[in-house]
Amino acid sequence: MEQMNRIRRVAIVGGTHGNELTGAYLIKKFERFPEVIERSSFETITLLGNPKAFEAGRRYIDKDLNRCFHNEDLHDPTLSSYEERRAKTIHQMLGSRGKAQVDLIVDLHSTTANMGLTIIMGNEHPFNLRLAAYLSSINPLVRVCNSTKSSQRNAFLRSLCELSFVIEIGPVAQGVLNADFFQKTEELIQAILDYLEGYNQGKTLESDRTLTFYQYVGAIDYPRNEHGEIQAMIHPQIQGRDYEPLHPGNPVFLTFDNQAIAYEGESTVYPIFINEAAYYEKGIAMCLTQKQQLTV
Amino acid sequence: MEQMNRIRRVAIVGGTHGNELTGAYLIKKFERFPEVIERSSFETITLLGNPKAFEAGRRYIDKDLNRCFHNEDLHDPTLSSYEERRAKTIHQMLGSRGKAQVDLIVDLHSTTANMGLTIIMGNEHPFNLRLAAYLSSINPLVRVCNSTKSSQRNAFLRSLCELSFVIEIGPVAQGVLNADFFQKTEELIQAILDYLEGYNQGKTLESDRTLTFYQYVGAIDYPRNEHGEIQAMIHPQIQGRDYEPLHPGNPVFLTFDNQAIAYEGESTVYPIFINEAAYYEKGIAMCLTQKQQLTV
Repeated sequence: MEQMNRIRRVAIVGGTHGNELTGAYLIKKFERFPEVIERSSFETITLLGNPKAFEAGRRYIDKDLNRCFHNEDLHDPTLSSYEERRAKTIHQMLGSRGKAQVDLIVDLHSTTANMGLTIIMGNEHPFNLRLAAYLSSINPLVRVCNSTKSSQRNAFLRSLCELSFVIEIGPVAQGVLNADFFQKTEELIQAILDYLEGYNQGKTLESDRTLTFYQYVGAIDYPRNEHGEIQAMIHPQIQGRDYEPLHPGNPVFLTFDNQAIAYEGESTVYPIFINEAAYYEKGIAMCLTQKQQLTV
Repeated sequence: MEQMNRIRRVAIVGGTHGNELTGAYLIKKFERFPEVIERSSFETITLLGNPKAFEAGRRYIDKDLNRCFHNEDLHDPTLSSYEERRAKTIHQMLGSRGKAQVDLIVDLHSTTANMGLTIIMGNEHPFNLRLAAYLSSINPLVRVCNSTKSSQRNAFLRSLCELSFVIEIGPVAQGVLNADFFQKTEELIQAILDYLEGYNQGKTLESDRTLTFYQYVGAIDYPRNEHGEIQAMIHPQIQGRDYEPLHPGNPVFLTFDNQAIAYEGESTVYPIFINEAAYYEKGIAMCLTQKQQLTV
């Protein structure tokens, strides 16, 4: 593992999508009770990612903010929609690549898929993997995954920082604040801050050296007609079965006249983001991952 | 029971809220396979309530369509938002009070609350109650309720017709098409159409003569600060417990710093629409009902 300086400043971001209320209200809590996220060896700052969309109760106003962080877009003066401007502001606040003003970003999201407590890696930096392994080892409900190809990841807010990840909780409906996940997310944040405090003080907390990791391998869309209209639904047998094995020949979709459509891949995969509301417009019915054991 | 003519035309409406996909896609199915809703003694028409909001993946564009059906508003030429105009169009299509062009309306909705298969009555017309009792008797998962005071009900699409009700299914996230509820709603619609066919043919289908009915008695809002911002969440002990008894002193909310807030009513109530996403903006954390046994 490369030599790293100590962590000086951490950013916790929520409400990057305005209708993912659980993270947004955690930010509001931390603003009101800053002592709960205070640690002696570093500073923790909070940020409500998309305040205008939060106010409107929508994912975004003009464009998905969490797809606006490509480096070239951040430096393109012609991009001026609300979210494109907001991304530039956040980039100024949290730091640009190479001269980061924060050392670690945690971005809080929720999904309508049954993903429990998921850590989505910003990248496979050894520090990120060790922290994820620590969180998995203290809470067996924690899952760790990638959700896109590495080439797509630069569009995300978390890409502003090398040490970064998303906490993705679900199932939670858009526009709903869920107290149980609110508490579980807060516990996870406390564990992260404690881990960082220990790291700064040279006392790395004990953890498993193996990590179960769900590696993104692709996504599949709903069957659609020539107008782009959906022609089938997530099959009831796979609904809510995120992180469970999907074998070739297993049903994935059900047409409106009750015909099952089977998964035609060549090997067993582990779907995630099954029936995520925000992904209909992105042409994603579910993401497919492979289950791996990593030594960290 | 008053003398009634036979049913000549039934309207099934879905997507009155554009992000309640399960009903909207049932309408799309029925448009593509009209034979599944055909019966010999009456005509069944279908209507996608709010096509522009469905297209946008939102509940509404300018205003909640299902609050636009007050008789005075339908005749007010100064009201010209998208939904106000759409309500006037639907009023023209489905009939005005007194000279209805359809005899019965079924309006398909979904909720983020755990309400299973709920029938919401448009009014307590004996025919509506008997039909509801029939549906409860063939499917024990069916619940029957009111969700507002009778004085508020004229704002709803279902108020266009004396014989009318809503099918409300949940929990389903906004923007999500749920195959299991899609199938259950379709079965319920088939049972309704069969019941109406029997009625027209003088063979009223057997049913219980008692109906468990959840009568609306009020609603409670989230605790808010002076800016209207929410200061507490639905308590985890009541989340998902729609139709279960709530006793005075039971916790209903949890503040962000973990203080439980108790229900302060004087008698046991049965909450519904607990944590419905669309009701945050309406100042409703849950609706309260009393459980009654009616003889129909």
